[in-house]
Amino acid sequence: MIQGYACPAKGEPLEPFEYDPGQLGADQVEVEVEYCGICHSDISMIDNEWGMSSYPFVPGHEAIGKIVAVGSQVSGDRIGQRVGVGWQSGSCDHCKNCGVGKEHLCLNAGEVEQTIIGRNGCWAERVRANANWAVPIPDNLDASLAGPLMCAGTTVWSPIRHYGVRAGMETAVLGVGGLGHLAVQFLAKMGTQVTGLSTTRSKETQTRELGATDFIATKESPEALSQAAGRFDVIISTVSADVNWNDYINALAPEGTLIICGIPDSQIQVMPFPLIVSEKRVVGGRAGSPSDTAEMLAFCAAHKITPMCEQFKATEINQALQHVRDNKARYRAVVAF
Amino acid sequence: MIQGYACPAKGEPLEPFEYDPGQLGADQVEVEVEYCGICHSDISMIDNEWGMSSYPFVPGHEAIGKIVAVGSQVSGDRIGQRVGVGWQSGSCDHCKNCGVGKEHLCLNAGEVEQTIIGRNGCWAERVRANANWAVPIPDNLDASLAGPLMCAGTTVWSPIRHYGVRAGMETAVLGVGGLGHLAVQFLAKMGTQVTGLSTTRSKETQTRELGATDFIATKESPEALSQAAGRFDVIISTVSADVNWNDYINALAPEGTLIICGIPDSQIQVMPFPLIVSEKRVVGGRAGSPSDTAEMLAFCAAHKITPMCEQFKATEINQALQHVRDNKARYRAVVAF
Repeated sequence: MIQGYACPAKGEPLEPFEYDPGQLGADQVEVEVEYCGICHSDISMIDNEWGMSSYPFVPGHEAIGKIVAVGSQVSGDRIGQRVGVGWQSGSCDHCKNCGVGKEHLCLNAGEVEQTIIGRNGCWAERVRANANWAVPIPDNLDASLAGPLMCAGTTVWSPIRHYGVRAGMETAVLGVGGLGHLAVQFLAKMGTQVTGLSTTRSKETQTRELGATDFIATKESPEALSQAAGRFDVIISTVSADVNWNDYINALAPEGTLIICGIPDSQIQVMPFPLIVSEKRVVGGRAGSPSDTAEMLAFCAAHKITPMCEQFKATEINQALQHVRDNKARYRAVVAF
Repeated sequence: MIQGYACPAKGEPLEPFEYDPGQLGADQVEVEVEYCGICHSDISMIDNEWGMSSYPFVPGHEAIGKIVAVGSQVSGDRIGQRVGVGWQSGSCDHCKNCGVGKEHLCLNAGEVEQTIIGRNGCWAERVRANANWAVPIPDNLDASLAGPLMCAGTTVWSPIRHYGVRAGMETAVLGVGGLGHLAVQFLAKMGTQVTGLSTTRSKETQTRELGATDFIATKESPEALSQAAGRFDVIISTVSADVNWNDYINALAPEGTLIICGIPDSQIQVMPFPLIVSEKRVVGGRAGSPSDTAEMLAFCAAHKITPMCEQFKATEINQALQHVRDNKARYRAVVAF
């Protein structure tokens, strides 16, 4: 039996919960959870915003912990290894995409295991995942802070890699929150010139401390955004608000890419002419494969990048959730189990 | 003096016209026009649809002809060389993009010369262009058919190259007209599996003859488009109609790219979730650099690709224009000068 905290029904507070995980799958590992982040997607699932929640379920998909059991087919000596578990916890391993290390784009959707969809996640003493999706955590990365890298981190890291962002580029991060404060650090440490884009100046100082060399308050100083016409090679949007996307297309250089990582409510609307004339791109970005995540973890360890986290105890899980719901976390909440 | 056909005022029929081109620029060549295509953009300019027409002006930007004069700084022995002139006829040659062979994305917009904007184009006995933008036509390419390659051709060829389309991919061409019938040929001859997408079945036979191995009539058989979910690595849209773009995003494979080449009236609207989950891309495509066009011309010569053209005499220019306005050209009209 596994003890954890489950959401009993749509939008309800979490409650202590015990479940029988059954036999460990041949390709799975069982991880003793040390820490787990709180992501907005946990709240979306608690509130059944996407219509795919089944109750009761244990949320949590940014876990760090040590492997305590391995399935019969798991190779290597992994007992005791510290690993991270994120949104995805399995893939078919035999489709065209899995075969080339793009397991996050696994074509057999029915076999893609997502940590908190139709199963129990990481706000518990233990959690299971396909061995490939339990990604080793470098020794010199602080385990108490690493959790949010497993979802927020890889969600911005992976598109940075997949869309060819490289040193010397002018980049911008729209929205400096859980995802954005990591994107700023990644982009700065990989040698791009980063500009923070946020509605007000309230996060300017901190964004610059994270490595940004410029900052535009898009609502307080809309003229500054207009003046940035043609400037950025890449803009990573982490916001879930509907914005005027044409303002950001305008701020892209020729061949510039607007990467959509946050999920806005409405359709994205863009004028075709500016897109065409300057070969601009609007693309989707998401959490990557285990190897993408491993690469990010190594980069974070090498460059001493960590999420900025507020710590909570397991018994404070509902307060921690409310803190995130109130948009007060700076920039990410992590619960110790 | 140069004799040609000019549009005297918005939407008016063309009239014989004579103008003094002044001294030939040091970096220019003068081309004796043999043939010139009619493009929808000529009509947009005649009708001042984009608000940048100044009358009277000579339309035409798909010219084939021989160089009869060269400016003082033009290198090489180019007198008598057969060349093509397209939409763009000059660029600054010293900006970051010009410096790496991306002259079509020249950053000094004020110095970008567009053949029929603020100057006279190719429906005339002679026309001028920057020597770099007068692209040599291979000897074994039929000069009477090559004109439309200079705009329609490079408009679909260049994004095919810039967005990494390669043999083995599943591709689709939305809209089989002037641009689309060339895109089908390019994609088939470069080893992709091409599907034609058109509202009805009326162009199916011809599209298959051009190299498509499949065809979907999107209005007659919308279920066929739904069934193509996740299928295409690339869709090239050549339509200027507003369509439900989400239907085409849905038909893209993970990491698939929707290339917008035609210019629809309204904003392009796409749902963010499908874009994000499968790392899909919506990108702008346009006519490329002189080297892109040269590469296309060599490919056409090697693979015996030519536009399908209807021929008109110079004195029939207004009938030819009406034919294109009535959407009757199969697939492109060319005028002999």
